[in-house]
Amino acid sequence: MYQIQTPYLLFLGDAPDQLAAKTARGINDWRPEKVVGQMSLENCKADLGLPELGLQEAYDKGARTLVLGTANRGGVISAVWMDVLKEALHIGYDIANGLHNKVNDIVDVAGLATQLDKNIYDVRHPTEQFPIGTGEKRSGKRLLPVGTDCSCGKMYTSLALEKEMLSRGMNATFRATGQTGILVSGSGASIDAVVADFMAGAVETIAPANEDPNHWDIIEGQGSLAHPSYSGVTMALIHGGQPDAMVLCHEPTRSHMRGLPHQKVPAIKEVLSLATTLAQIVNNDAKFIGICVNTSQMVARDIEGYLKKLEDEHGLPACDPYSQGTAKIVDMVS
Amino acid sequence: MYQIQTPYLLFLGDAPDQLAAKTARGINDWRPEKVVGQMSLENCKADLGLPELGLQEAYDKGARTLVLGTANRGGVISAVWMDVLKEALHIGYDIANGLHNKVNDIVDVAGLATQLDKNIYDVRHPTEQFPIGTGEKRSGKRLLPVGTDCSCGKMYTSLALEKEMLSRGMNATFRATGQTGILVSGSGASIDAVVADFMAGAVETIAPANEDPNHWDIIEGQGSLAHPSYSGVTMALIHGGQPDAMVLCHEPTRSHMRGLPHQKVPAIKEVLSLATTLAQIVNNDAKFIGICVNTSQMVARDIEGYLKKLEDEHGLPACDPYSQGTAKIVDMVS
Repeated sequence: MYQIQTPYLLFLGDAPDQLAAKTARGINDWRPEKVVGQMSLENCKADLGLPELGLQEAYDKGARTLVLGTANRGGVISAVWMDVLKEALHIGYDIANGLHNKVNDIVDVAGLATQLDKNIYDVRHPTEQFPIGTGEKRSGKRLLPVGTDCSCGKMYTSLALEKEMLSRGMNATFRATGQTGILVSGSGASIDAVVADFMAGAVETIAPANEDPNHWDIIEGQGSLAHPSYSGVTMALIHGGQPDAMVLCHEPTRSHMRGLPHQKVPAIKEVLSLATTLAQIVNNDAKFIGICVNTSQMVARDIEGYLKKLEDEHGLPACDPYSQGTAKIVDMVS
Repeated sequence: MYQIQTPYLLFLGDAPDQLAAKTARGINDWRPEKVVGQMSLENCKADLGLPELGLQEAYDKGARTLVLGTANRGGVISAVWMDVLKEALHIGYDIANGLHNKVNDIVDVAGLATQLDKNIYDVRHPTEQFPIGTGEKRSGKRLLPVGTDCSCGKMYTSLALEKEMLSRGMNATFRATGQTGILVSGSGASIDAVVADFMAGAVETIAPANEDPNHWDIIEGQGSLAHPSYSGVTMALIHGGQPDAMVLCHEPTRSHMRGLPHQKVPAIKEVLSLATTLAQIVNNDAKFIGICVNTSQMVARDIEGYLKKLEDEHGLPACDPYSQGTAKIVDMVS
């Protein structure tokens, strides 16, 4: 498994709005100590409030990887971007790319990297050959967030749990399964880009046996068992991850599953039951230890009451991992 | 979606034993009308009892595709095989290959095919770009076999159900999701070789909306919800297939899941319940209509009693689809 060099210079390019830079924002939210600054082009409408640095200036401050953390306009890597990439390689940077477009497909940029012995990481496109999963019990402990839907806060939940565990002196590692997570941690596998036969094996590879029986792998969740586009990926995460503990992630304001107006959001109770049954196929002890709610779209005064209701209904601690932290949930396993 | 030309000449090569030719046997069992004959090399230990024909002779009898339906020794395509492939292309054949090794990777064979405008189908390796699945309701009806384990008879069950339906004048189509099934039907997608994000979309593509509301797609099942290596593929088949009807497939003599000595076979009752819950996420009407048992390893005198016990226990018709046919099960939907 590769390990992307840090610190990073976050390239914001010519992002049309703040949302386009959400990958860069995620990196800076969770690993500010790995970030030297940001670099914007003309007309960039995103700003992370970091020092604005040129390539050479950031390199001199220690940056070793240029991170493409912004959606690119029109879905193509423009000529202006290519000049930046080539200059970065000449200065001595590796490139880590969170876009769908592969920098390794740009012949003269990829050729230059080879010539200069620099790395290009197209993190959405795994290059590693993973084994077929086995479901064999591995030492150490594992935690997996399981969502009622896609994009409801599973990565933030994972990172908040890791932060809380580390702050208590517990031994824990975030294991990334998507592009932002990989750029945050510097390692992992974009599980939704792995060939079907090897999905579970990829999860087993990124969350391997750990010598410390009390070490926690916090595996980034993906998709939802109730999302027909991606449920197979979620299934592979449950069986490849063989979690001891699961945390349900929920966004309470959705009127339907993300991107699918015809598909209703499942009841929390159903997902708790279904995921527990499936996880126990590979780990008899698998159970839910809490509920993480993404409250960002809720009316503020409703939040406490809603969380209390969830706790009463499901007998599990419930919190917003981002605004409240995950102490209540980590209490369940520490 | 491609359609492989028929009839076929089944190439048995230098198969070391009968089992090595099981793909060729499957084709001949289910589509004998598409098979002109077999072609063996020296030292071939497999025999399907078909006319033994040379390339030109079979072509003259109408064969248009040479099918590689035998596991190759040592996992490589030998020089002798390559000579056969090139001669076949010169005569006018397409090539359909069920092996892991890709014929399209053999530069001079692939080049010759291009030059002669002939097709090479490496059926284990989909080349089509599938969309992301949506789970939107499609017209027509769908049936999916769901197994307690891998390799317990899902393809044979599918083909036996199609045969029974067609014999009653019902409108039905077998939809292949694995290499043997694709060679049997001439079309389909090896679902376990599709990139994770597109698995459900691939199933939606091969079992599309049908103008006839009473048409049945019989989708070939894969893996098992309880098999940790492949459960993600099974999940995608359930959500991409949005079955109206499911048939449970079981091999009663297994002491553990195929290939995994540590993994126990799930109870039939558990799989019925789990698959029904999951299928109803995309199709409220999804239900099991029968149980197909692979009795080939059972003591003959135990079979009837066992099937009767299953029927009493689960309230569903139970049969061996190969030795007894599937009339009882098709009765449930006709």
